[in-house]
Amino acid sequence: MKKIAVILAGAGYLDGAEITETTSTLIHLSKEGADYQVFAPNVDLKVVDHMTGKETGETRNVLSESARISRGNVQDLNELNPNNFDAVVMPGGYGVAKNLSTFAYEGPSGKINPKLNEVLNSFFEQSKPIGAICISPAVVSQALGDKNPVLTIGNDTDTAQAIEKLGGTHEECVVTDYISDRENKILSTPAYMYDAKPHEVFEGIGKLVKELVEMA
Amino acid sequence: MKKIAVILAGAGYLDGAEITETTSTLIHLSKEGADYQVFAPNVDLKVVDHMTGKETGETRNVLSESARISRGNVQDLNELNPNNFDAVVMPGGYGVAKNLSTFAYEGPSGKINPKLNEVLNSFFEQSKPIGAICISPAVVSQALGDKNPVLTIGNDTDTAQAIEKLGGTHEECVVTDYISDRENKILSTPAYMYDAKPHEVFEGIGKLVKELVEMA
Repeated sequence: MKKIAVILAGAGYLDGAEITETTSTLIHLSKEGADYQVFAPNVDLKVVDHMTGKETGETRNVLSESARISRGNVQDLNELNPNNFDAVVMPGGYGVAKNLSTFAYEGPSGKINPKLNEVLNSFFEQSKPIGAICISPAVVSQALGDKNPVLTIGNDTDTAQAIEKLGGTHEECVVTDYISDRENKILSTPAYMYDAKPHEVFEGIGKLVKELVEMA
Repeated sequence: MKKIAVILAGAGYLDGAEITETTSTLIHLSKEGADYQVFAPNVDLKVVDHMTGKETGETRNVLSESARISRGNVQDLNELNPNNFDAVVMPGGYGVAKNLSTFAYEGPSGKINPKLNEVLNSFFEQSKPIGAICISPAVVSQALGDKNPVLTIGNDTDTAQAIEKLGGTHEECVVTDYISDRENKILSTPAYMYDAKPHEVFEGIGKLVKELVEMA
């Protein structure tokens, strides 16, 4: 049974992991017969009210909030040892660019969480596949842009330019499909980078997860 | 296009709506070509830390937390007019039995939210289908037990007995299937009443949603 690490950044697309993208990932991993373990950073997030879209001034713990999606199955990102897994996948949501990176605030000159950087480089060096959903390809580029990965962010020009600035090559892709960089074993799908419907996001992620598990 | 009301009770299975059940519902509604609107009660929930399973002493607003799953698409349950919808569906999670009812604390002698009671009775009287996932059949029984609905809660003896005490008839059902009471137009599936895998929950809910939309 393939073992897949899933990295989350909270629960809610404005300050954490995008929830439909995350459950779509877990449903497809489960359907493909893979074993998975969820990880999240033990840091605080700035709460955004998902009705108003505004910060409330509160903070919440990213590890604890991520556990809401995975029903308690979550470990500290610092415990993630890539030697024990066959692949890694990162759902999207602003939390990826806020809580695992400063990309949301500083663009391509922002910093990536050092542990995440180490983990992504380790999976890459061991030739184990990396799946990146929605905004995650931008953060993957912060870690692995120097390997010139081919990635998609859908058709968002600004983020595509940021990826290219970090060394990646951007390819446009529709929400129901994904891009496979087989040389680097990096897979990406745009998901809610588009104003998409839930079943379209589910379909694109399903295709990515299927190849990720086969490749792992 | 069929219009379906979805009633949520937060975001997280220990104090709100079960997240995989909710996104599975929305993905299948979207796949079946239905239009949906999410509703939640404008009340506070008692926060449970999903890593420890313990109450933290904090409160959060159920409406605002529900918006995390539906990307901001949520309205106050008080605004729900059954005349404007063809069907209603309730995903599960402890929040249903805590924030929309006192069933979690008081069992079959507990109280249901008066607006939810009114809404469920109105859908029933208009012969519009009602979908109930996981623990929701217990709360539906609080509203409609006197109609003797046939419902499933999986194979949980205590909750099945509570449903029967409220006037319903319980039928066992596996996680990947659902029970259809075609006379009363009430559909139910056990989902995470079992220690199930995400893709199994997704499958059972998919079958329920398919008939719900056809029947609507």
